[in-house]
Amino acid sequence: MKIEIIAVGNEVLYGHTVNTNASYLARSMQKLGISPMYMTVIGDDSDVIKEAVQLAMKRTDVIVLTGGLGPTPDDLTKEVVCEILGLSMEIIPEELEKLKQYFEKRERAMTSNNQKQAAFPKEAYILANDCGTAPGCILEQQGKTIILLPGPPKEMKHMFDNYVIPFFKEKVSHYYESIDIKCFGLGESELATRIAPLLGDGEGVNVATYVGKGEVIVRIAAYATEQAVLTDKIDAMKEKIEQCLGPWIIGYNNEELEEKVVSLLLKQHLTVATVESCTGGLIAATLVNCGGVSICFKEGIVTYSNEAKMKYVGVKKETLDSVGAVSEETAKQMAEGIRKATGADIGLSSTGIAGPGGGTPTKPVGLVYIGIAMPQGTEVFKLQLHGTRQENRERTVKEILFRLYKKLQ
Amino acid sequence: MKIEIIAVGNEVLYGHTVNTNASYLARSMQKLGISPMYMTVIGDDSDVIKEAVQLAMKRTDVIVLTGGLGPTPDDLTKEVVCEILGLSMEIIPEELEKLKQYFEKRERAMTSNNQKQAAFPKEAYILANDCGTAPGCILEQQGKTIILLPGPPKEMKHMFDNYVIPFFKEKVSHYYESIDIKCFGLGESELATRIAPLLGDGEGVNVATYVGKGEVIVRIAAYATEQAVLTDKIDAMKEKIEQCLGPWIIGYNNEELEEKVVSLLLKQHLTVATVESCTGGLIAATLVNCGGVSICFKEGIVTYSNEAKMKYVGVKKETLDSVGAVSEETAKQMAEGIRKATGADIGLSSTGIAGPGGGTPTKPVGLVYIGIAMPQGTEVFKLQLHGTRQENRERTVKEILFRLYKKLQ
Repeated sequence: MKIEIIAVGNEVLYGHTVNTNASYLARSMQKLGISPMYMTVIGDDSDVIKEAVQLAMKRTDVIVLTGGLGPTPDDLTKEVVCEILGLSMEIIPEELEKLKQYFEKRERAMTSNNQKQAAFPKEAYILANDCGTAPGCILEQQGKTIILLPGPPKEMKHMFDNYVIPFFKEKVSHYYESIDIKCFGLGESELATRIAPLLGDGEGVNVATYVGKGEVIVRIAAYATEQAVLTDKIDAMKEKIEQCLGPWIIGYNNEELEEKVVSLLLKQHLTVATVESCTGGLIAATLVNCGGVSICFKEGIVTYSNEAKMKYVGVKKETLDSVGAVSEETAKQMAEGIRKATGADIGLSSTGIAGPGGGTPTKPVGLVYIGIAMPQGTEVFKLQLHGTRQENRERTVKEILFRLYKKLQ
Repeated sequence: MKIEIIAVGNEVLYGHTVNTNASYLARSMQKLGISPMYMTVIGDDSDVIKEAVQLAMKRTDVIVLTGGLGPTPDDLTKEVVCEILGLSMEIIPEELEKLKQYFEKRERAMTSNNQKQAAFPKEAYILANDCGTAPGCILEQQGKTIILLPGPPKEMKHMFDNYVIPFFKEKVSHYYESIDIKCFGLGESELATRIAPLLGDGEGVNVATYVGKGEVIVRIAAYATEQAVLTDKIDAMKEKIEQCLGPWIIGYNNEELEEKVVSLLLKQHLTVATVESCTGGLIAATLVNCGGVSICFKEGIVTYSNEAKMKYVGVKKETLDSVGAVSEETAKQMAEGIRKATGADIGLSSTGIAGPGGGTPTKPVGLVYIGIAMPQGTEVFKLQLHGTRQENRERTVKEILFRLYKKLQ
């Protein structure tokens, strides 16, 4: 099956929006064992769209278009594709009704230009847009499959995952499965060295490493004509990799570190409280992102000033005067202080210089102390980070959650 | 001048690497007033590369290829392009010498496969690679310009900025400029309706709308042969759009709402404190993301539990018992309570049901109250959001910052 992905939109063509849609589609297709042969980006110009779709119909079997389904006169994808295929469109009452409800629910006015989003040829298999206004569609015409998806990534992803993948699944005859093993605390090359003999292709199994957001991902991918064989292959390789990388593994596939931490806290009936300086609430916000966290997380404090550090968690003035706010001792007192002040089983603290300013020769930008106070004692970790302000703060959150995760295991 | 950007590489085609090179090139070209007409991604397959380059030579004048200049047998771009043009390559002694020095300097062994990176046709204008091993080149053949750049973004960018832009500058004779106007609080279609007469092309100025992260962006782009004319065109259109959308404008280009808020707080010598329930620290974390925030933001509290709401900010037990934590009255008491407890000029609060669970018929998922307590009084806003847990929390942060921004203006 030859596939072309075409993104339509000036914002992509002019470089203001990076074409993450195409990458997402390609990665999602890989889970089905299929890959695109071409990715194309073109602007909101009906002649160019027409020519590109006609070319794609000549050189591929399946064409996935993203973008150009919006309400404005710029949005031309559906119109041009129908013109090429010689199909006429009409307003589909059910789709118009859904649109009306969408706007009513949000108490927003539906403008007349939204109407065209409900127009489709009767030959179209309409794909619901559960996250926005533009429905997509699948057209099977002239021996080709043309799939129209909206441009906003959130809408596109949801539509593809829920309505297009099942459609593709019927078309592919082999089984494919992949699993991502997320690791933290090892660089990519060190990690790759540890699993060097397992990397690459072998007996229908491929192992590769990728750099994720603050993590390194080991992906195992396998094909097979039988599901049982496939599962065996994946499981056997997974075990081998776990033997090599066990201490650094923080989760599988879409599992997030904070979810693992919250799940361990709940299982062990432990509560946690946070006191944050350089992370400014991001540790709390990350924990609170997990549903059901209210049982183990009751409160958190952002003590950005020295006064707040003394007032809420009893950091000693002498400590702040002598070794300063960014110090092992302050991190320790903060973590222990929040534990005491809240009665939580575990106290987490952060204090550091996130940057870009504020560094000194002895306390450079990126110096961060994180504290974990538990019934069995307090431990403080010193980090020296090298990213932007935002990256340093995100990294600090990952680091403290990783240390806590190891302690809870 | 018609331009096509072609990225060569399986890692891009399979979605593991997002094609940020193409976006970077397009944005850089815009500064010269030129734009690509197509962006294409293909894999490391000589037949497909050949066909794609031949197509590009047919439909465009300038072809910029990225990737496939490395030392491995997979790296085929230069070889295929020379084959198409009927040019033969030879090792260029100066380039070989540079390669040898590169490896010597890094105390790394130069393997024999690196040699081919020094091979070019004698017709090529070679582009130095100051950040890596693969030089690029410009070929002007058969009335077409073909530019070969390496794939690693750092190498590609440096080479393009330093050696290709000067080459392009000689070819273009006009100026280009664009400005993004970020709006919040209006949907794209409602916004587009308000500026409908201004949208599209007119007198060398283009106006278009895009959906950003929680915002709608209006982009003004203009071309002119004189810089002064260009500035006038942009300014005139900007003023017209500001007249239509003034109340919803939250910034220009890369300005973030939180930066505008913090800058207004600093200018007005106001301090702020936060008490968060459903946002779990994200309001504080967003503010703290702005450098220099320590002057206006001293502390914040995450009161996820009812107990914490009573303990830290004095929410009344009767209120929680009668109307509950997710209520206008609780949001009001929280915002006023944090103002009182911290002595800050402004108190910000959030309480709501971020989801996915926890909703009831009278208090559905997505119901959020945000409170802003200021010296002149307290205001509470009711939101009904429709996203995921994470989206609802991010939206809540944007909403409260937007309301505060309007109040501070």
